[in-house]
Amino acid sequence: MGKKAVCLISGGMDSAVSAAIAREEGNEIYAITFDYGQRNKREVESAKEIAKWLNAKHKIIKVDLRQIGGSALTDNIEVPEEAHGIPATYVPARNTIFLSFALAYAEVVDADYIFIGVNAVDYSGYPDCRPQYIKAFRNLANLATKRSVEGRPIEIKTPLLYLTKAEIVKKGYELGVPFEKTWSCYREREKHCGRCPSCKLRKKAFKEAGIEDPTEYEN
Amino acid sequence: MGKKAVCLISGGMDSAVSAAIAREEGNEIYAITFDYGQRNKREVESAKEIAKWLNAKHKIIKVDLRQIGGSALTDNIEVPEEAHGIPATYVPARNTIFLSFALAYAEVVDADYIFIGVNAVDYSGYPDCRPQYIKAFRNLANLATKRSVEGRPIEIKTPLLYLTKAEIVKKGYELGVPFEKTWSCYREREKHCGRCPSCKLRKKAFKEAGIEDPTEYEN
Repeated sequence: MGKKAVCLISGGMDSAVSAAIAREEGNEIYAITFDYGQRNKREVESAKEIAKWLNAKHKIIKVDLRQIGGSALTDNIEVPEEAHGIPATYVPARNTIFLSFALAYAEVVDADYIFIGVNAVDYSGYPDCRPQYIKAFRNLANLATKRSVEGRPIEIKTPLLYLTKAEIVKKGYELGVPFEKTWSCYREREKHCGRCPSCKLRKKAFKEAGIEDPTEYEN
Repeated sequence: MGKKAVCLISGGMDSAVSAAIAREEGNEIYAITFDYGQRNKREVESAKEIAKWLNAKHKIIKVDLRQIGGSALTDNIEVPEEAHGIPATYVPARNTIFLSFALAYAEVVDADYIFIGVNAVDYSGYPDCRPQYIKAFRNLANLATKRSVEGRPIEIKTPLLYLTKAEIVKKGYELGVPFEKTWSCYREREKHCGRCPSCKLRKKAFKEAGIEDPTEYEN
């Protein structure tokens, strides 16, 4: 049996590929997904399907970020079609909150790793996806837990940090990630809208990777 | 009107004194308390009374840490009378989770400060109360938020970090903190038990400060 890895699975493509890499490296996967009051419920359903595909233990953590507010992903703010600067879909301190829970869970199950699918290349301008942010969280994780005091800190792994979205698609394709089960669209509907910033990135990634896009888009 | 300060209020003595200092410095207080599934419900009630005394806006955030487990404070594990090393009352990554929420909330209300009553002197051996941990979180806060990208990072203030418990009591006494409304006991009962590690620290603090202890103890 390999080491244990807590993998954050959102239901999107990146976290699915990141977790598939964790599994390929021989780790036992403890997937976690946050039901944080996101307007789009499809994400959590997609996460369940990905966790099943990974044969992972899967924990869905309820943390209602609507108590905090401040984002188009949780509040009744319209998701814009074009994003400039830090977009309205930014959720204040979301990755910090999610990584904190991952850290706690990794300590409880005695995992050596946390895998998160953050990406600094084709990212959406979120401050908590930048390499310097990850470095700072890594430093924090080295000090925050009982395990760290015992000289066994929990390592934060970000295998997608410097990949382009097209490279992520290629890597996932090699590992057999069922992309048709992943969900990227910011809007809550049957099919991907094809027009929001997240759908546009998804389409572009498959096109640039030269891999057939299995996604059904409205447009 | 002063600057805004998000103050973590647990219901205990330290966070009440920390918030009283924030108010003394002229800040507008946004108190937050975590209803995290702690076995002891008295803590949240005490926090409400302290927030009222502070004339603070008060937000109670529900975050069920029983989903994660691993602590005597949330699980059905006995609280030991004597603590050695990192005690069973340690809650995995609790301060990291709480500070992450405080960071998100500070961003939403546009606060300049977060006040947390951590203490590195008479502390309970928790890794996430050490100065090097706070330094690491401060560094993270400088990178994690939209405000930090805009050059207005949120500052983490820890006015009690290097005070002894007796000095904290003296400081609170000067500021008129109603200690009789605070709660320290790990056990859930009408009066403080007087025997758990937290009650022992509380008793000792008043004694060493030479200030009359208004607490009713069973023993």
